[in-house]
Amino acid sequence: MADQVRNEQERAVERAPDPQAGTGQAEGVPAVNRHEAVVRDMARRAREAQRRLELTTTEERNAALEAIARALEDSTGAILAANREDVAAAEAAGLPRPMIARLRLDEGKLAGVIKGVRAVAALPDPLATEPEGWVRPNGLRIERVRVPLGVIGIIYESRPGVTVDAAVLCLKAGNAVLLKGGKEAARSNAALGEAMSAGLSAAGLPHDLVGVLPPDREAAVALMNARGLVDVLIPRGGAGLIRATVEQSKVPVIETGTGVCHVYVHEAADLAMAREIVLNAKCSNPAVCNAAETLLVDRSVAARFLAEVGPALVEAGVRLRACPEALAHLQAAGVGAPAVEPATEADWEAEYLDLLLAVKVVGGLDEALAHIARYGTMHSEAIVTQDAAAAERFLRTVDAAAVYHNASTRFTDGGEFGFGAEIGISTQKLHARGPMGLAELTTHKYVVRGTGQVR
Amino acid sequence: MADQVRNEQERAVERAPDPQAGTGQAEGVPAVNRHEAVVRDMARRAREAQRRLELTTTEERNAALEAIARALEDSTGAILAANREDVAAAEAAGLPRPMIARLRLDEGKLAGVIKGVRAVAALPDPLATEPEGWVRPNGLRIERVRVPLGVIGIIYESRPGVTVDAAVLCLKAGNAVLLKGGKEAARSNAALGEAMSAGLSAAGLPHDLVGVLPPDREAAVALMNARGLVDVLIPRGGAGLIRATVEQSKVPVIETGTGVCHVYVHEAADLAMAREIVLNAKCSNPAVCNAAETLLVDRSVAARFLAEVGPALVEAGVRLRACPEALAHLQAAGVGAPAVEPATEADWEAEYLDLLLAVKVVGGLDEALAHIARYGTMHSEAIVTQDAAAAERFLRTVDAAAVYHNASTRFTDGGEFGFGAEIGISTQKLHARGPMGLAELTTHKYVVRGTGQVR
Repeated sequence: MADQVRNEQERAVERAPDPQAGTGQAEGVPAVNRHEAVVRDMARRAREAQRRLELTTTEERNAALEAIARALEDSTGAILAANREDVAAAEAAGLPRPMIARLRLDEGKLAGVIKGVRAVAALPDPLATEPEGWVRPNGLRIERVRVPLGVIGIIYESRPGVTVDAAVLCLKAGNAVLLKGGKEAARSNAALGEAMSAGLSAAGLPHDLVGVLPPDREAAVALMNARGLVDVLIPRGGAGLIRATVEQSKVPVIETGTGVCHVYVHEAADLAMAREIVLNAKCSNPAVCNAAETLLVDRSVAARFLAEVGPALVEAGVRLRACPEALAHLQAAGVGAPAVEPATEADWEAEYLDLLLAVKVVGGLDEALAHIARYGTMHSEAIVTQDAAAAERFLRTVDAAAVYHNASTRFTDGGEFGFGAEIGISTQKLHARGPMGLAELTTHKYVVRGTGQVR
Repeated sequence: MADQVRNEQERAVERAPDPQAGTGQAEGVPAVNRHEAVVRDMARRAREAQRRLELTTTEERNAALEAIARALEDSTGAILAANREDVAAAEAAGLPRPMIARLRLDEGKLAGVIKGVRAVAALPDPLATEPEGWVRPNGLRIERVRVPLGVIGIIYESRPGVTVDAAVLCLKAGNAVLLKGGKEAARSNAALGEAMSAGLSAAGLPHDLVGVLPPDREAAVALMNARGLVDVLIPRGGAGLIRATVEQSKVPVIETGTGVCHVYVHEAADLAMAREIVLNAKCSNPAVCNAAETLLVDRSVAARFLAEVGPALVEAGVRLRACPEALAHLQAAGVGAPAVEPATEADWEAEYLDLLLAVKVVGGLDEALAHIARYGTMHSEAIVTQDAAAAERFLRTVDAAAVYHNASTRFTDGGEFGFGAEIGISTQKLHARGPMGLAELTTHKYVVRGTGQVR
């Protein structure tokens, strides 16, 4: 999804919440957080509204999404005007150009966002699954039924499209949503939120189902403290934002996104296939989490493969950070500085999100597995080989959300997996792993019907 | 499960980890934690060992559990001797009697624990589920396969049986386990851990699959900080322990257990059935989390019902905390102080875990729902009524792990639900909700097989 894109600049500007801000001092006395009361009140109202939404039918929820789409269309002028103010302020503040590009909305982009709303309305209702049920020997009838998570908080950065994408996915699955976007997009997000609330009201639902929080760090901290009022937080953005949320939040978090993904070219690889996969995994969209960051090549094919893929990568604008052996092979193939430099330990750990690739020669499958176990982030890992046994061992052994044989890591995506939509890619193991679709925005409860049973 | 039992005394003695201990000072500089290095090293070795376990078959894992059962049998003398030392130390320290009772093992109790190991071996393998699979239009074959969570940390209190129960459930599902029990049970837990490790070695598996951590708070804090080394923490014990773990841990936590459960007697209830359910929900085991803590009664039947259930509860040793209306009805039925006292706000929030029951008269279903939404802990909630529409509205509206119609809340339990075993009862919404069986100790990964696909 588009918002997976981020880069160093954006991360530098939209700093993660300050660990000290408003959470407490050494003695555990909370510092003043000027948004605490506001955020808690919004969360309470969102929960009230969610109880109402939970009782709606699939049709009523889809009609509400259509009403939101229409309200966004009706508010196009106001939204674009607000966005122009955000962009002007960002330009005046000298923010980096790629960030301003992400911030900017125009008629075409907004139409795309609105089209996305209708696409979500058209998806199957994740709450409409047949409950699993069984009867106990004592006659108790137990059903496990799908229910919404409740109130979901989203903490994200400067892309206004996320405001709408995330909100409609939450609503479709019966949840209320509290949105804490970046400061730079404050006016755009307020206008988008207002339009969505107007759509909800037009559909006869409470406008509090969507809440746009104050755009600063204190609001994020208040959200992380709102245990019991907010059911789950989903941070979407750079590694710093995600780590800060995971470490500080008292509300359960679904971690998304950091990807130090590897492509491992095994000695029995089809090298032409490996070349295409490596180029695709690195270059097709280097700024996203499922892009490859490190290439591992078996020693026996390293000279031949690197002589082929090295110049092709450099041709595509990629700079390489190579281990001594790989460096020698690349230099022998005519790839020299500055396109290739010696790798340091930091390169094996780096999520470049850029046209940069670390390259390492390994002694075989075991060494590749050990390297991935040590440096991988449990996101997406690929092996290229014609040896079925090696492939199966790789697929079975590697501990990651998605493991690939003879395919690019770039496929780890809700759309590519056929889920129709995604709210992010989970790199944790609890609740959701890999691309999260609508089902992951729900939970279950047990409904037990008796005739007076006691224990 | 037995370890759900806990009381004020135990909680007072086994205090929750100190929020300041070893986690950091105002400037974020970590204080010295003398167990940090030990715990991290144990976690690394557990992970190595788990990679080995993950590749075993169902039969190999069951054989390992049988070997553990035999090793525990062979070590009975040593285990009971260690336990006698723990009990003697606890008695010398003047620990409360119920706590010493929970701490004490004897031949019969240990045989029960060993029987439990074999019962877990006999359960179906949660990893042996048929993977869900599909083929994408581009030919990619995607499978969602069940895999272990990895390394699981258990933080618990003074019951040595938990050491074995929790470990074998984790192992059965392919996980390594790090056990952080209470100080009082240190010698017992060390002996049990040694026997389990010996069993694993006898079965040809790494003994590091089970690690018994140092029995103090610093080890718990080190475990909570071991993000990336430990995949999930499951705290089992009192509310203080659970809250501290949830709020401090950087490792994802599955929250278990706090239960402020309500029985709501609707105006259309079969009052004889309601009486049995209330007595059962309160009295059959008041110290567990699925016991009722508050009785809500509809105004139109309150006088009649309380005149019947009030004396029966008092007869069973229950003390009542009543709202003014309920108080008047109870007094009219001859139930007076000290058996009944006026309720305060604190009573609606209390998880008594004792022969105490809060009683409130409500104006109908809406008021009952509002009370439960405000004071419930999303554990187990029951309505007693012959009115099907009222029952369905209650079941649909109440946000809890288990909702009951005409049955006791006491059924929220892995065994009663038919899961064969349980590691706890989750009151959170992510990953697991309600009784957690073996399936909840696993996660999934996506295995993608291609023929050179790029995006």
